[in-house]
Amino acid sequence: MALEHIDDSEVDIVIAALQSDLTSFLNAWRPLFSRFHLIIVQDPDLKGELKIPQGFDHRVYTKSDIDQVIGPTTSIVFSGYSCRYFGYLVSRKKYIISVDDDCLPAKDNDGNLTNAVSQHLANLTTPATPFFFNTLYDPFREGADFVRGYPFSLRSGVDCALSCGLWLNLADYDAPTQALKPEHRNLHYVDAVMTVPAGTLMPISGINIAFNRALVGPALFPGLKLTGEGKLRWETIEDIWCGMCVKVICDHLSIGVKTGLPYVFRSDKGNPIESLKKEWEGVKKMEEIIPFFQSVRLPRTATTAEDCLLEMAKSVKDRLGGTDPLFARAAEAMVEWVKIWKAAGASHSTPGV
Amino acid sequence: MALEHIDDSEVDIVIAALQSDLTSFLNAWRPLFSRFHLIIVQDPDLKGELKIPQGFDHRVYTKSDIDQVIGPTTSIVFSGYSCRYFGYLVSRKKYIISVDDDCLPAKDNDGNLTNAVSQHLANLTTPATPFFFNTLYDPFREGADFVRGYPFSLRSGVDCALSCGLWLNLADYDAPTQALKPEHRNLHYVDAVMTVPAGTLMPISGINIAFNRALVGPALFPGLKLTGEGKLRWETIEDIWCGMCVKVICDHLSIGVKTGLPYVFRSDKGNPIESLKKEWEGVKKMEEIIPFFQSVRLPRTATTAEDCLLEMAKSVKDRLGGTDPLFARAAEAMVEWVKIWKAAGASHSTPGV
Repeated sequence: MALEHIDDSEVDIVIAALQSDLTSFLNAWRPLFSRFHLIIVQDPDLKGELKIPQGFDHRVYTKSDIDQVIGPTTSIVFSGYSCRYFGYLVSRKKYIISVDDDCLPAKDNDGNLTNAVSQHLANLTTPATPFFFNTLYDPFREGADFVRGYPFSLRSGVDCALSCGLWLNLADYDAPTQALKPEHRNLHYVDAVMTVPAGTLMPISGINIAFNRALVGPALFPGLKLTGEGKLRWETIEDIWCGMCVKVICDHLSIGVKTGLPYVFRSDKGNPIESLKKEWEGVKKMEEIIPFFQSVRLPRTATTAEDCLLEMAKSVKDRLGGTDPLFARAAEAMVEWVKIWKAAGASHSTPGV
Repeated sequence: MALEHIDDSEVDIVIAALQSDLTSFLNAWRPLFSRFHLIIVQDPDLKGELKIPQGFDHRVYTKSDIDQVIGPTTSIVFSGYSCRYFGYLVSRKKYIISVDDDCLPAKDNDGNLTNAVSQHLANLTTPATPFFFNTLYDPFREGADFVRGYPFSLRSGVDCALSCGLWLNLADYDAPTQALKPEHRNLHYVDAVMTVPAGTLMPISGINIAFNRALVGPALFPGLKLTGEGKLRWETIEDIWCGMCVKVICDHLSIGVKTGLPYVFRSDKGNPIESLKKEWEGVKKMEEIIPFFQSVRLPRTATTAEDCLLEMAKSVKDRLGGTDPLFARAAEAMVEWVKIWKAAGASHSTPGV
């Protein structure tokens, strides 16, 4: 992967710290992360000081930083995994890579450690092809190309806004699935990247993700918060909701979303059966929101991610707001988020935090 | 892959013989094909008798068989790769598997020979999930499942009508791509199967394909014949045109199309530079037909593959017929094909040919 055209200073790594001791996590990622600036956002519910090993160019953001930037608003809650969105907000870089703090670099089928950072950046800096399916996977990977019959007029592709990586060991299942298969581990490394076609919805996970902040940054926001949201991935759907919004917005803006490589190795934690109580609310909400996201259309006048998010907020309020206060709050949070995003952009006119 | 529920007698293997000597081809496939009935259709342009090794339950169909079944029609031409559609027509089985005669069984990443037959049947007999994208690939493969956030209401999936396999060594590129990269070989075995989302078009290749004949059989037909069509894959777009029709019909009927495994190993042949003269017509036609297939909608009253093909023929005639006599002929051929398909069904009331 030739990535000479990306300067390290164009990239921020954003880590949501849900545990205090990041020593083993960061040491495992050191060969991949140490070239880049790290934005570490401490879960505001997590007390005490973070333990961070030497040798990283980083800045830690805590509850007091959040309070200072966000001010008196109460519609956006940055607790739990949602705290990483604060990192997306304060970054001034073009590319963001974000990996959960229970993930380690993964090995490929030959047992070699993979480079999740360069793979995410390769995904983001080569075109996406959302308007026609290429059976030979990402045609811009080395050794790949467009299959016979792929229209030449669509081969230049479009900008890729979002790169969604996958998970070995503990895959990103919901609590019911994991509870049904407690011993199940994902050992299947699929060596492929592909563009998710336009018009197709997908569950985007926040565990291992990268995006072009300049293109689509404001569309990644923590809108939907479940009432009894917990601190395990399967106890939230913040990223699923966010992902639906982002996918609809990317489709509207004719920019692409890729999925596949890179993998990360996820460690086991939590008891899915205990989590089922919290998870069911998310599972039920999903069924309600799918028809909305399948049918929502944004007006042509919405030409930026900010515009799109505001239009989406309107539709959420109009069509879902009456069914559950959760959605009315989400719509409010989306509007508030765009305000904060614009203000944060205005207050940081020079790059680099 | 547990396929105990499929009886061998429910499957026909259809081979288009474009070369007279099938000895090495069939011997290579013997471990996989010998349990099944083989329908071998001899390219009507190919003179002489086919050489077929002992030990296969097979029937050869020649020009005289074709003339007898098809009668005096001139709108359907079964020469070249199109002759395999005659095999689809005379089969009475539920499942068809068709592999080009320049393909051999492929090896996986561990160097083990793969079983393309059982993989195609596994693809066809497990549900497809065209209405929502599963980032963990085919959730019905062993060891896989639905990712967190995948709506439970969509997890039962729909019938899979079509299984599109891939190619190692010589991938299915068009002549310009192959001419630009004469030394390029596809060595990348991606161990994945996925459903192509509803509403997404793809170039379906006829090289390595299987389908549920009962569900979608009549939609696989040799409609579009290029003027100077040749005998190499990159000199035709019969399968690309057919694939567009099938995909639109599957989407309309809410049935699925999968792509990925199984791979076959394709041998080198032909000179792409020599082929470029013929291929360009196909490449240009592709550009014309994409907007048509992207926008064509079938009426709700079309509830079978036959209905759908007739409706598609009407649209082809109305919207493309005026631009090139090629398309007017294709529309005629589609109507003719449905007649022949129905007549062939009526004349064979008992299964087994």
